[in-house]
Amino acid sequence: MPDVLDRSGVLNRARAVLAEVHDAVTAVDPAAAAALGAAITTARTVFFDARGRSGLVAKALAMRWMHLGLRVHVAGETTAPAITADDLLVCLSASGRTTGPLANAGVARARGARVAVVTAAPDSPLAAEADLVVVVPTGGGQHGGSLFEQACLLLGDALCGAFQHAHAIPDAALSERHANLL
Amino acid sequence: MPDVLDRSGVLNRARAVLAEVHDAVTAVDPAAAAALGAAITTARTVFFDARGRSGLVAKALAMRWMHLGLRVHVAGETTAPAITADDLLVCLSASGRTTGPLANAGVARARGARVAVVTAAPDSPLAAEADLVVVVPTGGGQHGGSLFEQACLLLGDALCGAFQHAHAIPDAALSERHANLL
Amino acid sequence: MPDVLDRSGVLNRARAVLAEVHDAVTAVDPAAAAALGAAITTARTVFFDARGRSGLVAKALAMRWMHLGLRVHVAGETTAPAITADDLLVCLSASGRTTGPLANAGVARARGARVAVVTAAPDSPLAAEADLVVVVPTGGGQHGGSLFEQACLLLGDALCGAFQHAHAIPDAALSERHANLL
Amino acid sequence: MPDVLDRSGVLNRARAVLAEVHDAVTAVDPAAAAALGAAITTARTVFFDARGRSGLVAKALAMRWMHLGLRVHVAGETTAPAITADDLLVCLSASGRTTGPLANAGVARARGARVAVVTAAPDSPLAAEADLVVVVPTGGGQHGGSLFEQACLLLGDALCGAFQHAHAIPDAALSERHANLL
Repeated sequence: MPDVLDRSGVLNRARAVLAEVHDAVTAVDPAAAAALGAAITTARTVFFDARGRSGLVAKALAMRWMHLGLRVHVAGETTAPAITADDLLVCLSASGRTTGPLANAGVARARGARVAVVTAAPDSPLAAEADLVVVVPTGGGQHGGSLFEQACLLLGDALCGAFQHAHAIPDAALSERHANLL
Repeated sequence: MPDVLDRSGVLNRARAVLAEVHDAVTAVDPAAAAALGAAITTARTVFFDARGRSGLVAKALAMRWMHLGLRVHVAGETTAPAITADDLLVCLSASGRTTGPLANAGVARARGARVAVVTAAPDSPLAAEADLVVVVPTGGGQHGGSLFEQACLLLGDALCGAFQHAHAIPDAALSERHANLL
Repeated sequence: MPDVLDRSGVLNRARAVLAEVHDAVTAVDPAAAAALGAAITTARTVFFDARGRSGLVAKALAMRWMHLGLRVHVAGETTAPAITADDLLVCLSASGRTTGPLANAGVARARGARVAVVTAAPDSPLAAEADLVVVVPTGGGQHGGSLFEQACLLLGDALCGAFQHAHAIPDAALSERHANLL
Repeated sequence: MPDVLDRSGVLNRARAVLAEVHDAVTAVDPAAAAALGAAITTARTVFFDARGRSGLVAKALAMRWMHLGLRVHVAGETTAPAITADDLLVCLSASGRTTGPLANAGVARARGARVAVVTAAPDSPLAAEADLVVVVPTGGGQHGGSLFEQACLLLGDALCGAFQHAHAIPDAALSERHANLL
């Protein structure tokens, strides 16, 4: 039996992933991305919501925005309070049809909060609920939402980096907020 | 084959659990419990830390204190920042030897934070690190830390209730902070 | 200013909590509780689902059933696969109206899985979706679902204990499955 | 005041992130990555362990391997049992000095499990504990471990994709295992 996970197979697959994520991230409208960054950094409190692997990416971004000094919560986590007016809900959903974020977008709007949606589906019900939509056009050869999730992590980290740079926030300020309990 | 989970078996077991938790909770020194409540409600920010089932009880208590208006975090959760001086770390550990809380107690003290420990083992390494120890004497017939976890939930909720009552905080104030995102 | 969290206040509150949880647990129909235990221990895989503090209690129970050798998952956790026929969904919801469990009960039934509901509201939409309902009658003087959550933990642990005893499973067998990674 | 999160700032930052992650992923030794894939896909059960944002990436990878049909757990999650011989522990740690994974690597080895480490620090204590090390060389201009985390997600997904392709596993088989409870 040939080695099914051989060097060249892994290498080719990694190159394919890199090419796909490059195309997805560079296809995002930078004005929409900048508007998302502005919405995040001017909200009183930002709530992130997503499910499955997108939910894990949303948590990674929430953590970095916390390091940058923002008031941030993740829907469903222990210490997340109620969302209220002046807050922002950021939903990540490739399909734009995930039940949880869809229900939460309705709650957020009813409370007077703003809703931002990052999705691959601009015509989806979730996008229809949003004040602000960032379309991450995916496709490619990977399973399910993998490309969407990768692109969201890179794009989100780019927003964090742009914000840190624009405000000249030193790395030490982020490190000081970094969790020191394991 | 007899029905192994029959009515009377379940009923007897439930009565045994109730008796055990009654004895454990009433054996706690109320002065120590009150001191824990005072430490929690006067800290700038309270961090809860525990592992396994005790960790789930700690999260339940953290959530209720958040409802009561305190600044609360859970070690290891996405949006928990660094612990600093003026903060309080509350560790729950039946054995007083759980690796994570033990390491975290050292970190907290090094940063100038206070450390409170709820444990069944007053002579444990974790208790030795603490500024404040609440001993929940367990034993009984249940597996592992079950009794400790039950007693901590009831005792912790009693502290929350005593605080709410003492400050005449209306239920509506808690409900307003209750997470509205699912 | 008087000490708002004084010894006698805490002690009185703890005794009130103990009395309430005693009344709630002993008011549960032991036949219904035994039926829940039988459903859990005969399913191919058991999925637990609840939100907020009830969700934390559900996780504590899921963990103990895993220790007892069952195949168990928690809705929304990383490694939880799809629920399918022959599986059981156990929902905890005081109100019987929590959005997530309500949606999930519908999914579970559509896939041919059984649904068990533990609730304080026998006439709720969630109870209407269930193959099996355990009513935990709550009321009392505590905030929100506290009494429900306490009663569910004690009752659930009593079921675990009854199962362990009935099958003469030694504590060592549970300890062997207990997580050893921190 | 100029718009600090303007279009060109975001675009430039996104391009910089893409370039960094491209360089990091292509600098990984494909033989080491293939060996990691082989270790994962031949273990009886795979445990993933990482903290902070790396922990979220580890969970995303664990979820995908579950979709692919492997027996997978995440250290610290509710239903994770004890690690034993024939299992594999996969740790992600940029510094190779994270307390939790370091302690867990020792536990895993003591139980006879294998340990794989993905790190930016080949000379770290964690790498010294490993049976298998994959070095993800990072550096670049991003804060903290961002580049490491991005590279681990892309590289890990590439391994999943290579495995799916090599075994001709249809997308439908993954979708069937995809969580259907929200």
